[in-house]
Amino acid sequence: MKILVVQLNPIVGDLDGNTAKILASLEEGRKRGVDLVMFGELTLCGYPPEDLVYHNTFLDSMELHLERIIKGSKGIAAIVGLVRRNLGEGEKHLLNSAAVINDGHLLGFQDKWLLPTYDVFEERRYFEPGKKTQIWEIGGKRVGLIICEDIWQHAGYVGYTQYGRDPVEALVEHKPEVLLNISASPYQFQKPDIRVNVCGKAAKTLQCPVVMCCQVGANGQIIFDGYSVYVNEKGELCQLAKGFEEDAMVVDLEAELCPVPFEYETMTTLLRALELGVKDYFAKCGFSKALLGLSGGIDSALVAYIAARALGPENVLGVSMPSKYTSIGSQSDAVTLAKNLGIDFLEIPIKEPFDAFTHLLEPHFQGKKPDIAEENLQARIRGIILMALSNKHGYIVLSTGNKSEVALGYSTLYGDMCGGLGVIGDVTKTKVYDLCRHINALEKKEVILNSILDRPPSAELRPDQMDLDSLPEYGVVDNVLEGYVEDYLSIDEISEKHQIPREEVLELIQKIHLAEYKRRQGPPILRVSKKSFGVGRRYPIVQKWL
Amino acid sequence: MKILVVQLNPIVGDLDGNTAKILASLEEGRKRGVDLVMFGELTLCGYPPEDLVYHNTFLDSMELHLERIIKGSKGIAAIVGLVRRNLGEGEKHLLNSAAVINDGHLLGFQDKWLLPTYDVFEERRYFEPGKKTQIWEIGGKRVGLIICEDIWQHAGYVGYTQYGRDPVEALVEHKPEVLLNISASPYQFQKPDIRVNVCGKAAKTLQCPVVMCCQVGANGQIIFDGYSVYVNEKGELCQLAKGFEEDAMVVDLEAELCPVPFEYETMTTLLRALELGVKDYFAKCGFSKALLGLSGGIDSALVAYIAARALGPENVLGVSMPSKYTSIGSQSDAVTLAKNLGIDFLEIPIKEPFDAFTHLLEPHFQGKKPDIAEENLQARIRGIILMALSNKHGYIVLSTGNKSEVALGYSTLYGDMCGGLGVIGDVTKTKVYDLCRHINALEKKEVILNSILDRPPSAELRPDQMDLDSLPEYGVVDNVLEGYVEDYLSIDEISEKHQIPREEVLELIQKIHLAEYKRRQGPPILRVSKKSFGVGRRYPIVQKWL
Repeated sequence: MKILVVQLNPIVGDLDGNTAKILASLEEGRKRGVDLVMFGELTLCGYPPEDLVYHNTFLDSMELHLERIIKGSKGIAAIVGLVRRNLGEGEKHLLNSAAVINDGHLLGFQDKWLLPTYDVFEERRYFEPGKKTQIWEIGGKRVGLIICEDIWQHAGYVGYTQYGRDPVEALVEHKPEVLLNISASPYQFQKPDIRVNVCGKAAKTLQCPVVMCCQVGANGQIIFDGYSVYVNEKGELCQLAKGFEEDAMVVDLEAELCPVPFEYETMTTLLRALELGVKDYFAKCGFSKALLGLSGGIDSALVAYIAARALGPENVLGVSMPSKYTSIGSQSDAVTLAKNLGIDFLEIPIKEPFDAFTHLLEPHFQGKKPDIAEENLQARIRGIILMALSNKHGYIVLSTGNKSEVALGYSTLYGDMCGGLGVIGDVTKTKVYDLCRHINALEKKEVILNSILDRPPSAELRPDQMDLDSLPEYGVVDNVLEGYVEDYLSIDEISEKHQIPREEVLELIQKIHLAEYKRRQGPPILRVSKKSFGVGRRYPIVQKWL
Repeated sequence: MKILVVQLNPIVGDLDGNTAKILASLEEGRKRGVDLVMFGELTLCGYPPEDLVYHNTFLDSMELHLERIIKGSKGIAAIVGLVRRNLGEGEKHLLNSAAVINDGHLLGFQDKWLLPTYDVFEERRYFEPGKKTQIWEIGGKRVGLIICEDIWQHAGYVGYTQYGRDPVEALVEHKPEVLLNISASPYQFQKPDIRVNVCGKAAKTLQCPVVMCCQVGANGQIIFDGYSVYVNEKGELCQLAKGFEEDAMVVDLEAELCPVPFEYETMTTLLRALELGVKDYFAKCGFSKALLGLSGGIDSALVAYIAARALGPENVLGVSMPSKYTSIGSQSDAVTLAKNLGIDFLEIPIKEPFDAFTHLLEPHFQGKKPDIAEENLQARIRGIILMALSNKHGYIVLSTGNKSEVALGYSTLYGDMCGGLGVIGDVTKTKVYDLCRHINALEKKEVILNSILDRPPSAELRPDQMDLDSLPEYGVVDNVLEGYVEDYLSIDEISEKHQIPREEVLELIQKIHLAEYKRRQGPPILRVSKKSFGVGRRYPIVQKWL
């Protein structure tokens, strides 16, 4: 039996476009002589469709598109992920399902049993758990079929949840000859090869090979990394689809394959995830050009690099907006960096509007010392300039705040927080440095200047300002941040683990909670960690815990 | 049997503060000679606690506070809503529960069966459904106890869901002599008296009286209106707690009571909801002073009125920021309105910074005609001025966008969308007019000037600009908005219902979807309708549906 594993990059809600891709893949499958073409989870509507599924016309349209796909399946079998109405009993009116199609006929549906409802997943909001499992006869084989989370529980990799049922175990008595899993599993730092363990565990239990077909591409803040896998009945990885791009891989269950390693380099993979996130956000929104403030600091340097890679340097404009507090070093580094990257560059000093505002506000600021108001004013003037250029010329503004700043609210709302997309808002300052060093190593040249890497972090909003004046070292910040936000550790656990005084941990955690109101109005953030501030984390703005 | 129904306004996460209120209420219960003191759903931690419940220390602390409450219950019974760990089987590790306490002892817990997971509710994210029901012997009566949604299903008032179980039916065989329901049920336009029907239905089924204890107060964007109810076994309303404020009502099950009407006036109730939303947002965040742009238009007039009522006029500052496009009428109306309301007033013309930006950007705007960029520039300068005053003097900025604008994106991101709270972001333009006329009728004077009510809506960002140049009449906009966003009607259904051409409906719906990126960065919005843009509605920014 031969399977074409089609790792698509669907656009959410684009039923026509996604159907066209599916039909083209069926045609390719016929050409390549396979028995079955399989697609990822909810391929027809893209994952996650969110509240679009509440619209009856959306569901009706999905049914019509399924009809088209069924008609287009002459001479071949297909498995297509979609949302369908739950006509049976249960709490919810919808099912996260896979249509099993063969030669112009619908054989039936396999519904997802395990519905993740944690972090970025909200499946219990929409779907009723599937209740049946069965064997599908395709290409002369006994095929078991399950959907994404259905396979994760068995390997013990689910969050905040202990499902009472195990679809893999339920298949044991059915003795499948191959297990198929259709997925939409987001990229996560240091995670890609977990999927091999997950499929391997199921393969060993069922004593059959496992094929997992994944979604690829970014939909909004969530990045899907692809890497569809084929493991043999011993749980060894035998074939791997590409990461971060569409791919179609023929799996021949009869072929004798040697195990292959899952090779990836952590920082390169992170970089590719961020690039894909930017690329798809623009492409799927119909934009091509990006604009960002280039301060001469490390965050904007990294974002400029990623944008240049994702969109082409000719589509990126860096704008330096110096003030009297901008160091000569920062200013010249911004120029050199733009040259290194080959991006467009503008310098627009903010003195004129700053003086105008200062004069205008003078009567209302009387008797008050310069403080955060004047600092934010500068950041907001820069925001206005970027947005004016964006409005006039059709750029999307990229926000350059890193996760450590986003966590602590060390940023200006409506100022440097402006932007259509927060590119590195889920990358800690520590990782920003690591990534920049990694880029220079990859590129074998000083793309990101050493002077940028070496300059102590500063917002340059007042004379001789240094981040260290207001914050602990970023190493400390990031340990607390990761401990509290990503791992839900207690104050004591963090304090002990990293040898940070309890009071300092508490103070940082309080800052994280206080900044919630800023984050709520921040740009969407590309999610790359296991807990991002942009999506999948819900905390009240108004609360008095800690 | 006498019950003290304590309708509290808890702060989310404030376990100490909420416990202090609970203990004081127990003391009051003893003084007033009742058998039982009952509180609302999750009173101990406030509803909704969101991801705070993922922290073990939060759960531990809740257990310790429960111990304190148990110790404080000498001589009296109490029912206290809280989150507890699920030590049994099931998908989720937590339970939405009620501790049943008597005279220094914990009698046990009643867990919530039906977990709403739609709109603003995300209970399946955290909680496992309760499985048991039982009778509690309190004050010599057989008491049935259920939690919020548990009673709604029975009357057919749940959204997007058809629970397979009915806790009210499950109690029939236990023959309770009274049914208690502890709730955290949000205010919704034209909804308050639904609760009487809901309790009435259960009363008739169980042939016993029903007492529903509600939460009151705003937690973030969600406003709880109170109105705890006591209905007799015939389902007639016999006692009603206050709306929009804390209350403690003694229900004497032995007393012979005549049915009372649930009297409320729709628009007055909406006004009280918005006032409470503002009041609690400020009080719970520890702020007292509000600031808003006073354009002389109707939206800012309404927000100024609400703020003055919620915070006291002495705590509200209206800032007029005229430009050359501001009409003399708008400018003088802003002054008069501020006088009418007794709020502080400032006038800060934006010419100076606008000229500075125009000059600065001139070389970068060459060859381009004035467009949205120049319009947004003005709105953003106003935003900067408001934020500068906010930062310098400790005001929270109120955003004045109405729901119709929020829907269509007829607003400037980082401009008039600035603000800590969107006061009327869930009130359509049609309702804004209705509310203002209602205010003048209530106050029996022209608080909101007729000239404001009569002037055609305009953003005044270019010469002779009128909303009607870019948008259909607001009556049409609001019909499409309510049909599509609140009722999930199809294009055809809306077109037919309101006699609006299909193309026009589609165009407005497309605008609603396109504006998603703006809304994602808008201020939190006080929720008053059945579907608000601020919370409880999840749509992808990047999508190609319609």
